[in-house]
Amino acid sequence: MEKEQGITEKKAGNFSEWYNQVVLKAELADYGPVRGFMIIRPNAYRIWESIQQYFNKAIEALGVSNAYFPLLIPESFFKREAEHAKGFAPELAWIEREGKDVDERVAIRPTSETIIYDSYAKWIRSWRDLPLKLNQWCNVLRWEVKQTKLFLRTREFLWQEGHCVYETKEECDKEVKGILGEYQKLCHELLAIPTLAGKKTDAEKFAGALYTLTLEAMMPDGKALQMGTSHNLGQDFAKGFGISFIDKEEKKALPWQSSWGFSTRLIGALVMVHGDDKGLVLPPKVAHNKIAIVPIVFKGDKKKVLEKAKEIAKTLKQFNPIFDDRDNYSPGWKFNEWELKGIPLRLEIGPKDLKAKQVVLVRRDTGKKESVKFSALKKRIPALLEEIQKDLFTSAKKFLDSSTVGAKTWSEFEKAVKEGKMVLVPFCCGESCEEEIKDETTATSRCIPLDQKKFEGKCIKCGSKAKNMVYFAKAY
Amino acid sequence: MEKEQGITEKKAGNFSEWYNQVVLKAELADYGPVRGFMIIRPNAYRIWESIQQYFNKAIEALGVSNAYFPLLIPESFFKREAEHAKGFAPELAWIEREGKDVDERVAIRPTSETIIYDSYAKWIRSWRDLPLKLNQWCNVLRWEVKQTKLFLRTREFLWQEGHCVYETKEECDKEVKGILGEYQKLCHELLAIPTLAGKKTDAEKFAGALYTLTLEAMMPDGKALQMGTSHNLGQDFAKGFGISFIDKEEKKALPWQSSWGFSTRLIGALVMVHGDDKGLVLPPKVAHNKIAIVPIVFKGDKKKVLEKAKEIAKTLKQFNPIFDDRDNYSPGWKFNEWELKGIPLRLEIGPKDLKAKQVVLVRRDTGKKESVKFSALKKRIPALLEEIQKDLFTSAKKFLDSSTVGAKTWSEFEKAVKEGKMVLVPFCCGESCEEEIKDETTATSRCIPLDQKKFEGKCIKCGSKAKNMVYFAKAY
Repeated sequence: MEKEQGITEKKAGNFSEWYNQVVLKAELADYGPVRGFMIIRPNAYRIWESIQQYFNKAIEALGVSNAYFPLLIPESFFKREAEHAKGFAPELAWIEREGKDVDERVAIRPTSETIIYDSYAKWIRSWRDLPLKLNQWCNVLRWEVKQTKLFLRTREFLWQEGHCVYETKEECDKEVKGILGEYQKLCHELLAIPTLAGKKTDAEKFAGALYTLTLEAMMPDGKALQMGTSHNLGQDFAKGFGISFIDKEEKKALPWQSSWGFSTRLIGALVMVHGDDKGLVLPPKVAHNKIAIVPIVFKGDKKKVLEKAKEIAKTLKQFNPIFDDRDNYSPGWKFNEWELKGIPLRLEIGPKDLKAKQVVLVRRDTGKKESVKFSALKKRIPALLEEIQKDLFTSAKKFLDSSTVGAKTWSEFEKAVKEGKMVLVPFCCGESCEEEIKDETTATSRCIPLDQKKFEGKCIKCGSKAKNMVYFAKAY
Repeated sequence: MEKEQGITEKKAGNFSEWYNQVVLKAELADYGPVRGFMIIRPNAYRIWESIQQYFNKAIEALGVSNAYFPLLIPESFFKREAEHAKGFAPELAWIEREGKDVDERVAIRPTSETIIYDSYAKWIRSWRDLPLKLNQWCNVLRWEVKQTKLFLRTREFLWQEGHCVYETKEECDKEVKGILGEYQKLCHELLAIPTLAGKKTDAEKFAGALYTLTLEAMMPDGKALQMGTSHNLGQDFAKGFGISFIDKEEKKALPWQSSWGFSTRLIGALVMVHGDDKGLVLPPKVAHNKIAIVPIVFKGDKKKVLEKAKEIAKTLKQFNPIFDDRDNYSPGWKFNEWELKGIPLRLEIGPKDLKAKQVVLVRRDTGKKESVKFSALKKRIPALLEEIQKDLFTSAKKFLDSSTVGAKTWSEFEKAVKEGKMVLVPFCCGESCEEEIKDETTATSRCIPLDQKKFEGKCIKCGSKAKNMVYFAKAY
């Protein structure tokens, strides 16, 4: 294998360098010409399409429709919800007004609450117009100053943002939680990434939200990654944008709103959680090409082997096999390439296999080989893909479980954070206390678990009465 | 029907006002808060998704992969291909640089040739890297000064842009034409819109292209609409961006490039071509909901009718039926609503139908009713949908054919243009002559038909030797 082709850093070594190499060499992404921008290459865009397909089905079942709102937002819109304005102001990219017929400054959307709710105010009249549930898949731009990390922190990224309006708080609460459930299903079932579900503290919630629910995953370097958030926006945006409706009693009422989103950073999580020293490892359900077929040919038997391999490729069409009959590369080189690119299964067939009426299947995740008779192939492959999917989740779950710990004292807490753990501790939920923890340990509160029982305890930091058990960790 | 609900202008009356009403009242789109920007509502976004699905399949078969390149393009990129720079400069939206760490000005993409080819220069090394075929679905922005027309002319629009690189001119020529063929299939088979295929004159070709192929459709108001274009870019972009490859003889060579695109303006064409005085008419293949089921209930039989209607809805799930059992609207009101929104078929079922074990099917396009026995429904519906699809195309084709005329003299030409015809005439293809025609008649050259035979003739305008037979028409 040429040095240039393979990953030269170990996952257990310089993790960040390993990650960049996998992303670049598996041709998932590249750096754009403007600092902070990235190019999403086909190998990653296909993953995004898998995610889109999966999630579109889920939200269609909930009655959510896709739509598209404009890229540019007038300055005055940002000011209609004070907290929201404050949260996004520093990261906005404004358009030069010279020669443009605009009455006020306009910025590229960092998120679309404001421009969408301006339309909602026009469209919503009566309780019969509710619930209103729209989603859009689009690009957003946040001019961050922190250093770029491909997929995890870029100034422009792709995402979905859902925006719903309800008659009552109860409906809104229910679906804010329901959406988080859909996100968790997507992470667990499709991406094979286990997550912790919880509520953000006030310090970490979305700018303008009543409360924010979040999914947190644990990366192998001991940093948490936020996978998706679902916000109950309360009624403040409705007030700011003049959204009201005539209710069933024919009275004017304020609706309740939610918004929720996940982004292409999920692809970064996928790389980190499942990848290994050979490169990307794709869970079968998210992989477009589930098999790479590599015929092992020698001069004498070349034709026969190729013919059979081609025939097999045809019968396995449902798995979108890559058929690699390039004659300028050795089988070993090809093995390395498809391993680097994370194809879940490799199918090898050579002259000996031909005689034995079998192929060799090699798992990308474990490297385990097995010989499978031609006749058993169509049954064995789906079963094997399912095993891989399950095993990837199990192994990631084991890591998450072992990373999740408690702490009885402040020094235990500090030690656990330093070791890259997700630490569950009693916390007063005070903003200044949270700030101190961040300053001293670089850990931030990740979430308040949704399913916590009543408890008595003292805040790990200040010792006053704790309000909740809260997860803390270093985070991306 | 409430006046507010229905279309109050005739298609044969003020066409432009009729069009706006259909787009707004069928809830396809709305105006955005910034002048020149539009909101694509779910009813139209679903059409766009149908188009995406159809076209993604077509290009996947050609080996084209989807990707995503950054929104913002550095100023210097635009200057690397002179004609291209000149063509787009007036319409660019620049980002304010104050507080931004950028070395030069950056603009929102009006199209992505430049930023994509900057990456291609890095990625392409050898003939083994070719052909390289990528496509992206994205938003683009062109700050036009002409007045906005929903879907047809907006400053931001959604589109696909394909960008391919080949070893030879022959391959490039072949696929530039092949893509036009795919566009034509999409227009004819999915949208039921007939088109004329041809080559743009030099005056009308894409800024920076060697030549441009185009599809032109005829709108009912006698204006042509460009449905999609496919450009052979020659080797100028390769020169400007430093794209080269080592060929099979191990020599450094310049590749040939193509780009091709269509946009959400196709949705505008769909509205214009098939719509009528009652509103939108959707070809069945592009309609997400192919049937609207309206139970006709009276007090006594309500339960039975609703039950049967629901049962039918279940068996017709593959057609995504709308089941309209709202009890606050009359059947007549519902009929109007689903007609306005263009649902291809209405299924009515009342107490009498229940007894006769039948339903009434009503075609949106012709209004023709037929009774169909429950037992025949699953067979009759697909056949009927196919008939509708075919009839819509046939009727649009008839219009196109009757709109396409010749002209022997300049005054015949002027008269035909004034009457809203697509006029095929001998033309010298001189740019100044083309300019004069435009000034005097407002008609522009639409295309040089691809399949034209050799001919002798004199230019319709200047009388010098004609180079080609060329279509002229007023256009959107």
